[in-house]
Amino acid sequence: MQMHDEQSSCSGMILISTFSDEQSLINLSKTLVVEKKLCACVNYTRINSLYVWESELKQEEEFIAFFKTTSSHIQSLKAEILAHHPYKVPEIVIIKMDDVSSEYLSWIINNTHKG
Amino acid sequence: MQMHDEQSSCSGMILISTFSDEQSLINLSKTLVVEKKLCACVNYTRINSLYVWESELKQEEEFIAFFKTTSSHIQSLKAEILAHHPYKVPEIVIIKMDDVSSEYLSWIINNTHKG
Amino acid sequence: MQMHDEQSSCSGMILISTFSDEQSLINLSKTLVVEKKLCACVNYTRINSLYVWESELKQEEEFIAFFKTTSSHIQSLKAEILAHHPYKVPEIVIIKMDDVSSEYLSWIINNTHKG
Repeated sequence: MQMHDEQSSCSGMILISTFSDEQSLINLSKTLVVEKKLCACVNYTRINSLYVWESELKQEEEFIAFFKTTSSHIQSLKAEILAHHPYKVPEIVIIKMDDVSSEYLSWIINNTHKG
Repeated sequence: MQMHDEQSSCSGMILISTFSDEQSLINLSKTLVVEKKLCACVNYTRINSLYVWESELKQEEEFIAFFKTTSSHIQSLKAEILAHHPYKVPEIVIIKMDDVSSEYLSWIINNTHKG
Repeated sequence: MQMHDEQSSCSGMILISTFSDEQSLINLSKTLVVEKKLCACVNYTRINSLYVWESELKQEEEFIAFFKTTSSHIQSLKAEILAHHPYKVPEIVIIKMDDVSSEYLSWIINNTHKG
């Protein structure tokens, strides 16, 4: 019942960020998932990046990470990642899930911080 | 002409899910693309996942899959994947395409079930 | 101040496309990022694709690319990629960022073409 109430008032959200170093991504993810409970799950994979930094073309290997949470926690998650991210200007992009299976949304809600 | 009519009334949709086993993902994808025609295309890649399951931190390799379809088929696709997914609580996340090239949307429409 | 004005009137956008050949993707990306300044950054990775083409099931390796830009440039970026893409019917899917850190959005704005 309470789960139903909470579902009707919150949406699933995906926060996307990139990291140069797998271990710092894993450490931050553990803090966010286990300790702070600001997201229920992190998926990440190796990616190639191409961009200009200080007028120079960069081609690098990075890790792209997808943090799954709800609208209740998305602003705290964003602030926490910004505060602990190793980059000066990290990519922090947020996409709202337009739909999500209700059991998976419940699982996210139940694996993130209450209140 | 009919294609135009159909385009104006439907949007492109992406369904995201994760799987532990590549072969079951391929088998399900073939059923959805070839037999049931509920999506036109599946992209997938290996991904690392970090989450808590039954109070224990899990770090696993999974496959993340992106199923491309239209708003006409998205609910049937969701139901079909939920019904045949090997996980107890699978991730089923849906993102609406905010825009899509009209030829690619036509291709999705033409490679999914009519009516 | 001007940055603030520009931020308030534009959103971050992600254009997703797939390519069969890494070098043509890199070449197109360099043109878009360095010369034309229609996007600030491209991320890409290898992906497996499964679809039907001319009644035949195809299973192929491709590269999926994410081009990061703003609403000011998204239509020019889409047209440019469509014009130079090696595929007959390329996937061109656009997702609007529902939120983005203001510094990262500024970085995208400052690394794309003005006016």
